[in-house]
Amino acid sequence: MKIILIGASGTLGKAVEAELGQRHEIIRVGRNSGDLRVDITDSASIRALFEQTGGFDALVSAAGKVHFGQLDEMGEEEMAVGLKDKLMGQVNLVLIGSRYANDGASFTLTSGILSEQPIVLGSSASLVNGALEGFARSAALELPRGQRINVVSPNVLVESMESYAPFFRGFKPVPAADAALGFARSVEGAQTGQVYKIW
Amino acid sequence: MKIILIGASGTLGKAVEAELGQRHEIIRVGRNSGDLRVDITDSASIRALFEQTGGFDALVSAAGKVHFGQLDEMGEEEMAVGLKDKLMGQVNLVLIGSRYANDGASFTLTSGILSEQPIVLGSSASLVNGALEGFARSAALELPRGQRINVVSPNVLVESMESYAPFFRGFKPVPAADAALGFARSVEGAQTGQVYKIW
Repeated sequence: MKIILIGASGTLGKAVEAELGQRHEIIRVGRNSGDLRVDITDSASIRALFEQTGGFDALVSAAGKVHFGQLDEMGEEEMAVGLKDKLMGQVNLVLIGSRYANDGASFTLTSGILSEQPIVLGSSASLVNGALEGFARSAALELPRGQRINVVSPNVLVESMESYAPFFRGFKPVPAADAALGFARSVEGAQTGQVYKIW
Repeated sequence: MKIILIGASGTLGKAVEAELGQRHEIIRVGRNSGDLRVDITDSASIRALFEQTGGFDALVSAAGKVHFGQLDEMGEEEMAVGLKDKLMGQVNLVLIGSRYANDGASFTLTSGILSEQPIVLGSSASLVNGALEGFARSAALELPRGQRINVVSPNVLVESMESYAPFFRGFKPVPAADAALGFARSVEGAQTGQVYKIW
């Protein structure tokens, strides 16, 4: 399969490449590095990416920023970060990418445990992750030509605990390699509209 | 209790007023009608509303627009309707309203069954409803002074079937009065971070 991997240089992206790269052709895409570049907050940049890739069999997105901060300091500007980047960035990869994707292609997006298990400072992440899961369930009904969509919802990653541990006390972190298996299930399996929880 | 009811003139709003108005003071708020007016897509309008209401014990939002349409015709503009109105409109009622709300006040927002049970044409609604539920679970951890937040997720309403039936085949509609009970559970109960499913 020809797989487009958005966020290839991140912790999760590298683990996905290690897993799926064993069996498939990976096109590594990042904001500032990789085989190709994309700014997922910019529809024109997304379109330019797919003009370069042409048809593909799977798109994996392990990308997306949200703002973490206190609820009482969350305003429109802080919320807009996650809405534009992790949420609509990933949604637009599907809405635009579907036109370029091959018959039967899959889209796999990344949400995260905070949609169901919240933490202090994480209201925007919980909002965005919940939105991505709702969107995927619904988009699965309408994607054309046998295309599929799933979401992987990882717990906090072992590899991220050095910086994230204070915010995720009591959470049992998962290795990025375990989270990568969720992407393999989505890409190499046959289900659609699923949320693969890696926790 | 002094209860601010946003979307008071709608099908759901009227049912909430019929239920909670038996025991509480209701301030009816709408875009174009009611005791007071608000445009929930406009933070300045939300602030102006709370300057008029002063402190309150509960805010119920039964308001919010989303765009229904085919996935392959969903672009940024179509998605923006739900993001600005039903999602961030309701979120901003909480973020801004929390500063005006009394100690122990509750916020109750409206999502809908499509977050979990999707329909064709409903990708934006599923996204928005999932986002609202994720946000409420997380905001519940951080609201100050004993304030609470819950979401009511109604099925399609009996009263709406005349226009919505073709889109909700096989769904068993619920009377708006049943959905109103979810708001009573939230306002007059003690839980927080809950999604009350009326289906």
